[in-house]
Amino acid sequence: MGKDSESPKEVSRRDFFKSSAMAVAAGAALGGIGLISKDAAAKEAIPKKWDESYDVVIIGSGFAGFAAAIEAKIAGANVIVIEKMPMHGGNSIINGGDFCAAGTKMQKEAGVQDSPELMLKDMLKAGLYLNHPDLAKIVAYGSKDALEWCETYIGAKFARLNFHGGHSVKRAHQTINASGSELVNKMLSKAREIGVKVQTRTKLERFILNENNRIIGIEAKKNYRFPDENTGTKAFIKASKAVIIASGGFARDINLRKIHDPRLDERFESTNHPGATGEALMAACLARAMDVHMDWIQLGPWTSPDEKGFGYVPLFCERLVGYGPMINPKTGKRFFKETGNRKERADAIILVGTPVLIMGDTYAVKKQVFPNALEKGIENGSIKKFDNLDDLAKAYNIPVAAFKEEIARWNSYVEKKKDPDFECMIFPDAKPMVEPPFYAARLWPKVHHTMGGLVINKDAQVIGFDLKPIAGLYAAGEITGGIHGAVRLGGVAMADCVVFGRIAGKNAVKENSWG
Amino acid sequence: MGKDSESPKEVSRRDFFKSSAMAVAAGAALGGIGLISKDAAAKEAIPKKWDESYDVVIIGSGFAGFAAAIEAKIAGANVIVIEKMPMHGGNSIINGGDFCAAGTKMQKEAGVQDSPELMLKDMLKAGLYLNHPDLAKIVAYGSKDALEWCETYIGAKFARLNFHGGHSVKRAHQTINASGSELVNKMLSKAREIGVKVQTRTKLERFILNENNRIIGIEAKKNYRFPDENTGTKAFIKASKAVIIASGGFARDINLRKIHDPRLDERFESTNHPGATGEALMAACLARAMDVHMDWIQLGPWTSPDEKGFGYVPLFCERLVGYGPMINPKTGKRFFKETGNRKERADAIILVGTPVLIMGDTYAVKKQVFPNALEKGIENGSIKKFDNLDDLAKAYNIPVAAFKEEIARWNSYVEKKKDPDFECMIFPDAKPMVEPPFYAARLWPKVHHTMGGLVINKDAQVIGFDLKPIAGLYAAGEITGGIHGAVRLGGVAMADCVVFGRIAGKNAVKENSWG
Repeated sequence: MGKDSESPKEVSRRDFFKSSAMAVAAGAALGGIGLISKDAAAKEAIPKKWDESYDVVIIGSGFAGFAAAIEAKIAGANVIVIEKMPMHGGNSIINGGDFCAAGTKMQKEAGVQDSPELMLKDMLKAGLYLNHPDLAKIVAYGSKDALEWCETYIGAKFARLNFHGGHSVKRAHQTINASGSELVNKMLSKAREIGVKVQTRTKLERFILNENNRIIGIEAKKNYRFPDENTGTKAFIKASKAVIIASGGFARDINLRKIHDPRLDERFESTNHPGATGEALMAACLARAMDVHMDWIQLGPWTSPDEKGFGYVPLFCERLVGYGPMINPKTGKRFFKETGNRKERADAIILVGTPVLIMGDTYAVKKQVFPNALEKGIENGSIKKFDNLDDLAKAYNIPVAAFKEEIARWNSYVEKKKDPDFECMIFPDAKPMVEPPFYAARLWPKVHHTMGGLVINKDAQVIGFDLKPIAGLYAAGEITGGIHGAVRLGGVAMADCVVFGRIAGKNAVKENSWG
Repeated sequence: MGKDSESPKEVSRRDFFKSSAMAVAAGAALGGIGLISKDAAAKEAIPKKWDESYDVVIIGSGFAGFAAAIEAKIAGANVIVIEKMPMHGGNSIINGGDFCAAGTKMQKEAGVQDSPELMLKDMLKAGLYLNHPDLAKIVAYGSKDALEWCETYIGAKFARLNFHGGHSVKRAHQTINASGSELVNKMLSKAREIGVKVQTRTKLERFILNENNRIIGIEAKKNYRFPDENTGTKAFIKASKAVIIASGGFARDINLRKIHDPRLDERFESTNHPGATGEALMAACLARAMDVHMDWIQLGPWTSPDEKGFGYVPLFCERLVGYGPMINPKTGKRFFKETGNRKERADAIILVGTPVLIMGDTYAVKKQVFPNALEKGIENGSIKKFDNLDDLAKAYNIPVAAFKEEIARWNSYVEKKKDPDFECMIFPDAKPMVEPPFYAARLWPKVHHTMGGLVINKDAQVIGFDLKPIAGLYAAGEITGGIHGAVRLGGVAMADCVVFGRIAGKNAVKENSWG
């Protein structure tokens, strides 16, 4: 079947004229949804000749992709990592470097009592029990080992323990430079050192299946210049054992977001790098892969409308929850539990309808916030500093009397370490907010993480719409769905990526070569 | 490409041995997920010869399927409706016959002020604004016309106006026999009268695509005896214009449910007919169709494990909330707001982990519960009657002292009309529960409706994972996703099915014949 002599582009064009006006109407109905890839709709054809050939082809160069690449290489495979962007790292290189793990040495030294059971419990609760429990369990129970692998084998350094909302204890092990770059750059070095080929500006166009629906390779574009679809040259890359897809989430794909959560249109910015779009995920689905939980799109409640991207305010905000109050500027009052999980807080802020404040006094800020983050936030104007509460109230147009009354109330809760209003978890070393100067930043949610993605099993095999594993296809990291259910907790992404990236890499090598 | 001489079954078997132990492990990881269709994984092949040929092939014989069939036939097409079950009607024939429509004659006569705007607003609010707003709008604004078409053209009779939770006004027009059978049986008669062929025991096996990914027909099994997959004989049915899929939801498909909401395993029965499984939906996805909102699976919190299907307990339970307590039999205590919404209550019961009780004394039951429902529930053993609270506690193995203390507490709340524990809305005419006999029934949620399904556009064309309409494929009814968002309101299914069924039928005929 199929006419191999016909180029996919021709087929696609003819198709377009056939479906004509109706297709145009359809696009309009879905809010102007376009075409992810010109060739994606064309019938898959097996190339007559492969341009390159590897045992394992890995799509994406973040935590998951490199974890997979390194394990596959160690197991003896010939491995390439392709990356569509001009630089490796994806979101991993811009993340905050917090790696949640349970029962670690650092936790023990800090007197934190934790266990994989407790981490799993936190993940399932936050996930509204939509998590695939077997997969979540693998992350929680594998987190300590994964962290140790990153330290001892990769050589990444972790310097301190952080808390994230929704966790029962402090279990986020932060890299020494407070960025995922510490880990992903060292992964890149290690990968190169052991002989993994890493090639940027190379974009997946489609998966190539044989007559048994086994994945046998990909069509890619080399020398691609994101986001210009007219750049790059076609190349067929053979994967004789497997393809591992680790290309991340779709937080920046407005068309795809609007299908799964029509609210999240152009009005919402994203913390993600510009390449966090969904075309690789869609290519997998066109190759029979099943998607799950796509409508759970996480908003970061700690981002600021006063700076672009992720920015510095999240580092300010997340260090202060449990030490300082969140204030609705319209009322001067608190409105939600500061230590609530991401979804709870984002929904609460959206209900307020206007950016809200997170605050801290000098004691809390000095104790908790990295001087660098504070400085940079002040520099770009997203964090502000005030000598007294009256000035602060005035600057944000807050009703002063109600506000000062609320701060006194907050302070009384901090003294008792108990918040009867919203049950904020107030930390043992928190102090009443009295020591000037006072600091504040405005918060408004940005799209941060997409919980949904490809269905995988415990071996990181991608499950098809026939509910069976797709031979030759593995996935790990944000492109997978099911692990986090409705809500991914802060710091669990790194654990997830490293745990399942390694599983994918190890198992991909076990596949029989198809040719 | 492909080896046409090889039968799909052979390919499938060989595939199985190839993937070997890993596939078995994979199945186990996903909780024993099996194989929806033996042939589904095999590469699509275009048959050399078609066994039957039509302009439009419609899969499913409920409201949506017949609405589509009748419109396609009126527009001049040669139409067949296939149905896998031995009888037509699916869930449509067992539903309660409530058809929501806004601004109707019956509403005006009853003094109900309603509008399509208000109906849309109710749908979007219930749907947590995940609804595709353009599609929801078409249902709300088309509901009155659809109802009139059912009355005047189909000849169905509607007798009274009902209220459903979440709607702002009474807008559910109930059929004269309080069942969807009134409409679907008359649709069947009309379809046959105008020359639509209707064929039961005919099951979709897979869609057949040409080299341009246009749907050109289906492979089916004729003389299929649900649920025995070893029955039936293969037939290739050509659709020269289009296939319309209207095969309903997947509430009875435990494997598929567990992927999208892992809680909903074998412990959960369903109110649906046994054929409400997802293989046709998965077949569409294997043919490149995109799914959406699959994890929004509606549970009825008011069903009983002590009777089959929908039963009588829902009619007992829903009349008693706000008058009597829900009790966790393990503790003897209340555990959640009795007047919470469907989803909240179902989630709370699932967290309890065992069936809970809804109770009422003679005053509440006599005042609230329809005598017929009470009688029937007592008759089938799902509702029980006790002379005193000790006997009741004993019968359900409830810790007596804690239970009686909790009832006294509940009674004190009823007196004050205020529930500080769970903020149950206690109705003004509620009285403390003291008047024997006491009545109780066990509650355990059953799966009632699947909001998710295929992405469609305003023309009822199915959208593919390349975000473009799939040529030759339309869908309507519960198999589609996006219209109801997170929650389908009671009575809106009938409107949705008739509105989009008619749109699908009219547009399918406009497709150019492919051959």
